[in-house]
Amino acid sequence: MAMHGIVLFGHGARDVRWREPFERLAGKLRAARGSEPVVLAFLELMEPDLSTAVSGLVAGGCDVVTVVPVFFGQGGHVRKDLPLLVEQCQAAYPSVLIRCAGAVGEDEAVLDAVALYCLRQV
Amino acid sequence: MAMHGIVLFGHGARDVRWREPFERLAGKLRAARGSEPVVLAFLELMEPDLSTAVSGLVAGGCDVVTVVPVFFGQGGHVRKDLPLLVEQCQAAYPSVLIRCAGAVGEDEAVLDAVALYCLRQV
Repeated sequence: MAMHGIVLFGHGARDVRWREPFERLAGKLRAARGSEPVVLAFLELMEPDLSTAVSGLVAGGCDVVTVVPVFFGQGGHVRKDLPLLVEQCQAAYPSVLIRCAGAVGEDEAVLDAVALYCLRQV
Repeated sequence: MAMHGIVLFGHGARDVRWREPFERLAGKLRAARGSEPVVLAFLELMEPDLSTAVSGLVAGGCDVVTVVPVFFGQGGHVRKDLPLLVEQCQAAYPSVLIRCAGAVGEDEAVLDAVALYCLRQV
């Protein structure tokens, strides 16, 4: 049976406090996924980078890796930078299937949850 | 009765496509809020900036403005840049109450929705 890892891919920031919701999100997914690994990776300013994260998942026995961009919009980082990084990882680990999801902020249910949060602030 | 405006405050990006979920979010909130205004504002790379957005709300008759940071984490942009911008707006419009919410990505229900999205990708 295939072992399927998830990479939560965020932008990264100088302020370490920025990372906190990403850790909480990873914790929620770990609770739901049991023994299948969920890790973080960042485009810049924070570690690990995508290549290091994927390398760890492959070393841990993953056959399939899904990268989820934890971004609101599909701008240049998601549409240009990330596909290049995924391509480099795929070339480095040809025996592993590396897939990439759409940005979480494009999802209707995520936007509905954000809208409800906004309405609770007024 | 007070008129209460909402500003959805995002980072901004070079790629205009990035803005699309912010427009969808504003549309959802407008549908829920009836005649009370909901506008976008950006820290950089996109227009309008916060001052222009608040100025428009005040000109439209708002007495209270709530700024909601549409960011995942509370990094330097939300914890340092935004409070300064809000303070400048408050000084420019002393008769209007300008409030600032926490980053949407810190909300438990938003994180739950993001987690469900991630689980649907594997």
